[in-house]
Amino acid sequence: YASGMHCGIKPQKKDLAFIYVPESKASAGVFTTNQFCAPCVEHNRSSLRNNQIFKLLIVNSGNANAVTGEPGVANVRRTTEVASKFFQCEASEVAIASTGIIGVQLPMEKLERGIEELSREPKASHADNAAQAIMTTDLVPKSAGLKRTIGDVELSVAGIAKGSGMIAPNMATMLGFMVTDADLSSAELQTSLTQAVQRSFNMMSVDTDTSTSDMVLLFSTGTKPVADQGAFQELLTEVCIDLAKQIARDGEGAEKLIEVTVEQAASEQEAQAIAKSIINSPLVKTAVHGADPNWGRVIMAVGKTPHVTVKPEQCSLYFQDVCVLQNGLPLAFEKAVLREKLRAKDIFIRVRLGCGESCATAWGCDLSKGYIDINVDYN
Amino acid sequence: YASGMHCGIKPQKKDLAFIYVPESKASAGVFTTNQFCAPCVEHNRSSLRNNQIFKLLIVNSGNANAVTGEPGVANVRRTTEVASKFFQCEASEVAIASTGIIGVQLPMEKLERGIEELSREPKASHADNAAQAIMTTDLVPKSAGLKRTIGDVELSVAGIAKGSGMIAPNMATMLGFMVTDADLSSAELQTSLTQAVQRSFNMMSVDTDTSTSDMVLLFSTGTKPVADQGAFQELLTEVCIDLAKQIARDGEGAEKLIEVTVEQAASEQEAQAIAKSIINSPLVKTAVHGADPNWGRVIMAVGKTPHVTVKPEQCSLYFQDVCVLQNGLPLAFEKAVLREKLRAKDIFIRVRLGCGESCATAWGCDLSKGYIDINVDYN
Repeated sequence: YASGMHCGIKPQKKDLAFIYVPESKASAGVFTTNQFCAPCVEHNRSSLRNNQIFKLLIVNSGNANAVTGEPGVANVRRTTEVASKFFQCEASEVAIASTGIIGVQLPMEKLERGIEELSREPKASHADNAAQAIMTTDLVPKSAGLKRTIGDVELSVAGIAKGSGMIAPNMATMLGFMVTDADLSSAELQTSLTQAVQRSFNMMSVDTDTSTSDMVLLFSTGTKPVADQGAFQELLTEVCIDLAKQIARDGEGAEKLIEVTVEQAASEQEAQAIAKSIINSPLVKTAVHGADPNWGRVIMAVGKTPHVTVKPEQCSLYFQDVCVLQNGLPLAFEKAVLREKLRAKDIFIRVRLGCGESCATAWGCDLSKGYIDINVDYN
Repeated sequence: YASGMHCGIKPQKKDLAFIYVPESKASAGVFTTNQFCAPCVEHNRSSLRNNQIFKLLIVNSGNANAVTGEPGVANVRRTTEVASKFFQCEASEVAIASTGIIGVQLPMEKLERGIEELSREPKASHADNAAQAIMTTDLVPKSAGLKRTIGDVELSVAGIAKGSGMIAPNMATMLGFMVTDADLSSAELQTSLTQAVQRSFNMMSVDTDTSTSDMVLLFSTGTKPVADQGAFQELLTEVCIDLAKQIARDGEGAEKLIEVTVEQAASEQEAQAIAKSIINSPLVKTAVHGADPNWGRVIMAVGKTPHVTVKPEQCSLYFQDVCVLQNGLPLAFEKAVLREKLRAKDIFIRVRLGCGESCATAWGCDLSKGYIDINVDYN
């Protein structure tokens, strides 16, 4: 059950949502590694550590409740108490998320009135409203869902996400909330979620900046037996990748989705590091924005990756499946033809290292003047 | 002795320079860590490893001679031979640098004719022409020099540099060429240069991207005794910082120089990592561009720094010496007044961590639409 509404934190747009899983049997979460993390992040992390199972999520946009000191911590506690009263669950079963401006106290009266109003229809199925209510600079709401038969049981995973700026590698980097019916323990769910996030949200970057408030939460009703946890892991990863690509495509100012695949690396870790180095390079991002097949910048980004060894003479490079560099040497290509291909909305860059068997994929977006417009004066 | 000219690699602007130190007694160099480094970088690095002392530097702009395979390596060798013939030194005494487009072979005929022409006046003192001839997207030439009495001897250090984009941390990240009269061995000179670069060029970033061709070289005539190597080290560091700030100020599209100082860190390494994280954050850079005192983004950049522990409740933060965050809590400040101060060309951000005694300073620039304009179609 989910819905969203306008409670008054933002001037006009929806800014408050809930996800309610009264039959929740297990839950898991992955959180920002930013050391100035918001008190809601601390609250959720410590609840999961104490083996609490979340049944209700309350999430607001327009205010991150980060760097707000003791009053900010008290407001998280107060929100869990208010929400538990109206939704008739325990305060310990409530997860909280906040996203928006840093350093401003939450307007608690508006928030509490909003929660009361939302609780009048606790079994609403307005996931679209919830997806809208968690947006900040996002232009489009983001949701994804998949069903798959594993063993002879059809399992489901569905989720919503937000994120457009302050989106960076090495952590959760956004808000993502998912539900499943897979009958797994919280510990098993946590393992699956951590691995899925590592290959999806953590392989996606808009601007290398890491928010203080980000998290991915997964709830399970546990109504369906899981014959093969590996197959469930894949299902979950696919939904996470779908959401991650939606975030990259909606990156601040973005006009293109960039997918970078690094093949034949010595290890998956090295493949991931190189793919992220390319996706984060402002010179690669501006070249893609200009439909410029500037492979020198991609090679530069491969070569600058720290703690990774590459063999330049074994490297090959493809734009939209056109080989522009083979075994370390430039190939002649029809520049006008390739420029035309690079005018597509989806840009594929592939690097073959010739060093091993591992591969990784990362997602990002181009860098345009729109990013500057959005960020020169956010307040 | 130095000069520069137009030899025809670029359509119109100066593109070839030399620095000639016939009495060179010692030399040192610091080079890019990019693994796709250009053959001139390999050549210089291996010459220094073999205890060669450079007397002549030939440097061209407009073509990086990087990712050019065996012909690129042969062209470096050929250039040292041609230059040694015309300047009457040994080929092993010639250092080479190239900057510009990646993946295109050097036009050797033009280059050789240019070297011949430059060699007709080997004792020219046109450092200004040399500084112009090494520019790529730079808007202004960069030079610096200092004299200081150490013991009772007046020592000199002078240098030129270039760099505007593809400027990033953890390595030489640009071209810088310096001369001194300090009587130090090549090994002592190398130690001083490595330490100076670590606190100057390596603490400066325009866009986190690391060129394949970058280097800093230092020549010494060894005519002046050095009473105190520490004092010489400081002198050299000051010249390097002067050049590094000139590069940051002239960053692609930049309108402002940003100086970030991190104080009271547990170690210099942690202070450096945090200062670089702030200087590299696109959200901090766009906020500075918009004169927006968005301290939340600075805090975000402190908190996201990998492998560093901070105590949020002990952090204080200053913009232009106005305290906006004290011991982890926001201070009220007159926003209009601070915005006015942030319209200055030089922006100072200071973070006090309350964790120790170490500090570090980094230099960068704002992120404007000019950066996008310059880089959407470089070719």
